[in-house]
Amino acid sequence: MPTERSFADATEVVDRGDGTFGAHIPEGWDIVGNVDGGLLLAVVGRAVTTATGRPDPVTVTAHYLRPGRAGPAVVSTEVLKVGKRFSTARATLHARGSEVITALATVGELEEGVEVLHLDGGPPGLPPLEECELLVGGDGFPPAFMDRVEVRLHPEDTGFIRGAPSGVPQVRGWFRLRGGEPIDGIGLLLAVDAFPPTVFNASFPAAWTPTVELTAHLRARPAPGWLECAFRTRYVTGGFLEVDGEVWDATGALVAQSRQLALVPRG
Amino acid sequence: MPTERSFADATEVVDRGDGTFGAHIPEGWDIVGNVDGGLLLAVVGRAVTTATGRPDPVTVTAHYLRPGRAGPAVVSTEVLKVGKRFSTARATLHARGSEVITALATVGELEEGVEVLHLDGGPPGLPPLEECELLVGGDGFPPAFMDRVEVRLHPEDTGFIRGAPSGVPQVRGWFRLRGGEPIDGIGLLLAVDAFPPTVFNASFPAAWTPTVELTAHLRARPAPGWLECAFRTRYVTGGFLEVDGEVWDATGALVAQSRQLALVPRG
Repeated sequence: MPTERSFADATEVVDRGDGTFGAHIPEGWDIVGNVDGGLLLAVVGRAVTTATGRPDPVTVTAHYLRPGRAGPAVVSTEVLKVGKRFSTARATLHARGSEVITALATVGELEEGVEVLHLDGGPPGLPPLEECELLVGGDGFPPAFMDRVEVRLHPEDTGFIRGAPSGVPQVRGWFRLRGGEPIDGIGLLLAVDAFPPTVFNASFPAAWTPTVELTAHLRARPAPGWLECAFRTRYVTGGFLEVDGEVWDATGALVAQSRQLALVPRG
Repeated sequence: MPTERSFADATEVVDRGDGTFGAHIPEGWDIVGNVDGGLLLAVVGRAVTTATGRPDPVTVTAHYLRPGRAGPAVVSTEVLKVGKRFSTARATLHARGSEVITALATVGELEEGVEVLHLDGGPPGLPPLEECELLVGGDGFPPAFMDRVEVRLHPEDTGFIRGAPSGVPQVRGWFRLRGGEPIDGIGLLLAVDAFPPTVFNASFPAAWTPTVELTAHLRARPAPGWLECAFRTRYVTGGFLEVDGEVWDATGALVAQSRQLALVPRG
């Protein structure tokens, strides 16, 4: 039974039997009034895994059309292909008569005991939890959403909170659901969009960066425990920036990669 | 008037006025019988830009459902949102009664005179064209497709051709359309999937890697001339690998980023 305000509760979907799923996005998962993009992605992910009967998102792409608000929502799904190992579906989350996000997903079953053939990189090597700064939600920054999760930022990446950005557009930190609620593949879809914008640490003035598109690739189901996350921006050009994310589990396994394209705020 | 077998010809679409577009994929754009994934993406990109009346792909994601073959095809499109700057649409390319690829795209107008706010990286610094190896198509490797484009590989990345992979899963090289046919944003969708698989240079035995999903982000329309491209794989785990691509134009501007998720061939 999902706890009130748990992640499981916030992403619960009710199968209406016609390819559509009812959802209800609770209060408190927002960033200055707009529901966190990762939570919207997770709701869509839950609908698609239910619709296809396959347990894990493998690759999910969402395009963000309008800000999401707390309240009732409907996810309409359409399964495009059922293969031996994977199924592919599209899904759109509607609320208050409009499309909020639209997604394309391939789902399957992630392997246990993940075989590693090549690694050129690793976990970000965060300092111990107690040396990393817990973001506590409020009316401004950090936003209310931060109380639904537990994000502890690398001390080198917290300068922006006190008006002294590091100059390096990255944010690294520990992540778990509030109180250590277990995280599955659906939870990883939240993790990849749960950190402050990388450009808060940039050397140029930056505001919230609206997501145009976000893609998450899942490699494995995470082992229990905190996740180590790193988000980095390399190119801010042409009015756009990318945010590349990596999520590593407590055993040191890569469990997700993400990339989003966001808009550079104007004026 | 597109030349026979030109890229413009291969990606030409005929608007049927009902959101569907007729296409005809010519012979010769295949890799061992399967049409190059970048060409399929480009055909879809052309249909979506035509359907929305916006000139440039900004972010396009495709999921690859079945191998494409030369011959007639139909792209069905559905515009989901028309905004002030961008439109979002989904599109599916059908051929011989089945879905081949399905895509989600946000399109708009890329800025001219691209403003650069932050760069942490740059063009791969390729040796001059004449020192890079032109891939010439044939029945095996390089495949027939390589005669439709001009790819000149960095000499450090050509070892796999002679059975001596570099051990670093990357391929870098110059790219242009055959004979220097002009490249616009649609052409960039081809460029991001026109190189041999990165894992051909890996330290483990590798074969062709089927694409599950590919996302391209376009930052600017390319200036005339050769493009400098770099594709790299960092993580081969859990049965999957990512390929990250960057495309730089002749003025040194980043014009596209790409990432694909591909399957590690089994057996």
